[in-house]
Amino acid sequence: MNDNLKRYLDKYRKELEQSYNHYFSQLDIPSNLKQSMLYSLEAGGKRLRPILMFVSYEVYGTSIEKVMSSAIALEMVHTYSLIHDDLPAIDDDDYRRGKPTNHKQFNEATAILAGNALLTYSIELISTDPLLSSDEKIQIIQLLTETSGPKGMLAGQILDKGAEKQAVPLEEMERIHALKTGELIRMAIYAGAYLGGASEKQLNHLTEYAYYLGLICQVQDDILDVTGDFSKIGKSVGSDEQNEKSTYPRLLGLDGAIKQKEFYVDKAFNSLRLANAEDSLLTGLTKYISERDH
Amino acid sequence: MNDNLKRYLDKYRKELEQSYNHYFSQLDIPSNLKQSMLYSLEAGGKRLRPILMFVSYEVYGTSIEKVMSSAIALEMVHTYSLIHDDLPAIDDDDYRRGKPTNHKQFNEATAILAGNALLTYSIELISTDPLLSSDEKIQIIQLLTETSGPKGMLAGQILDKGAEKQAVPLEEMERIHALKTGELIRMAIYAGAYLGGASEKQLNHLTEYAYYLGLICQVQDDILDVTGDFSKIGKSVGSDEQNEKSTYPRLLGLDGAIKQKEFYVDKAFNSLRLANAEDSLLTGLTKYISERDH
Repeated sequence: MNDNLKRYLDKYRKELEQSYNHYFSQLDIPSNLKQSMLYSLEAGGKRLRPILMFVSYEVYGTSIEKVMSSAIALEMVHTYSLIHDDLPAIDDDDYRRGKPTNHKQFNEATAILAGNALLTYSIELISTDPLLSSDEKIQIIQLLTETSGPKGMLAGQILDKGAEKQAVPLEEMERIHALKTGELIRMAIYAGAYLGGASEKQLNHLTEYAYYLGLICQVQDDILDVTGDFSKIGKSVGSDEQNEKSTYPRLLGLDGAIKQKEFYVDKAFNSLRLANAEDSLLTGLTKYISERDH
Repeated sequence: MNDNLKRYLDKYRKELEQSYNHYFSQLDIPSNLKQSMLYSLEAGGKRLRPILMFVSYEVYGTSIEKVMSSAIALEMVHTYSLIHDDLPAIDDDDYRRGKPTNHKQFNEATAILAGNALLTYSIELISTDPLLSSDEKIQIIQLLTETSGPKGMLAGQILDKGAEKQAVPLEEMERIHALKTGELIRMAIYAGAYLGGASEKQLNHLTEYAYYLGLICQVQDDILDVTGDFSKIGKSVGSDEQNEKSTYPRLLGLDGAIKQKEFYVDKAFNSLRLANAEDSLLTGLTKYISERDH
């Protein structure tokens, strides 16, 4: 990653974390619920979705506070989906980002309720943001619920669960990933550009870009599950293999998966050019995401 | 229940069910997810919360379509909370309304995701309702997420779980019930009156009324867990006892619980009088809720 990009990402991450800590410090709720919500939210991660929203916003807009509640809300929704995905009844994972998963650290009941609380509070945050008009709030809430709901991420999660232990063709796998991972990335890119004031044409090309970026994320996740290092990725390597999940390396071989990723990267750059956004930080971010080792 | 009230409730129930079936018929999502969502939504129940919203609306407003998306959303949120409450990690119940609970009928993963889907889709429904202005949508979404989120229902659920197997004083139990059951009842009453055009003073007295009504619901639920008939209430009698839950009968004895309920009923009627709403269907509904046998 080049230094300029790294500086920006660190700045965005710090602002995001300061801002959600501010929101949580004012939240008067049962302490074990709050601890459990914050535990997973603080577990860190790359903050990819909010950062994409900030970067997408800054292509068009000037005052980053305008997207802060949407960015925090999106990170909360992503975090809730990870907490629930890790539950024994779904992926049954013990580690996430190098720490015990939420239900291992607390218990299953708390993990279920903390996930629900993050989802619900994410919407409340947007609905009470004094910097957004009612029209803007409704646009963002509609987008967030559509992309994370039964037509979006949740459809991806249930299809992914159903696709365990069977051979799934590439097209079906792409569809599952576009729903499970891609929809929230679309939310990030679209919401940022929308609140920044992008034109409809620009929003359309950015939506295409987001589609390919989501697939790049997923291929690289799958590749890291084969080639990655526990100390870097912070979760068990080989867990996809154990769960007999359909993955790119399983379907195309490791070399095939890498080629497929390069194909998606070309497509993503093309969409960025069409949106006249190739000179933005989105270009460097796309490279970083496709080459990251964790 | 008198015939007039019964006729109204049947009419409201039918309109609610027609309307959510219409929404679901247009929803293109994975079939097992849709079946699981509809299974619990169709399991029936009394539709208490949407009916309270309709009745509260009609004290002030004239066109019931105006509250329909909010009423369906509230019933979806209530249904999601029941699905998750029944999970093995929380209350571990096998029956609900005389049918296998969602995770028994499908599986735990599907039940968790279907609950999440009902919650998320409830907000999307409101956000896309063409009959509401953006300001009205935001008011309703803010109210729904506040009452069902970590400051409301979810706080009640986690405190309730923590209160198992210990002696909890009456005041603490009231607080738990006010959060776990009362907040969604407040949502029902407040949203109906708000969309109908009630004054601020009327909204305040109705909020008091809703508080007592929530407690009445809970005392009667607790009483029915002791005295009820499986064939009528549709779930195992005595499950609170098995879970060592703090209940009104356990704390006050059965007679004491009945006296406590009568105290709450008096308080509720007083608030209705102060809101000049004692001649509405809310009076009959309050009596019905406090005396129901299922």
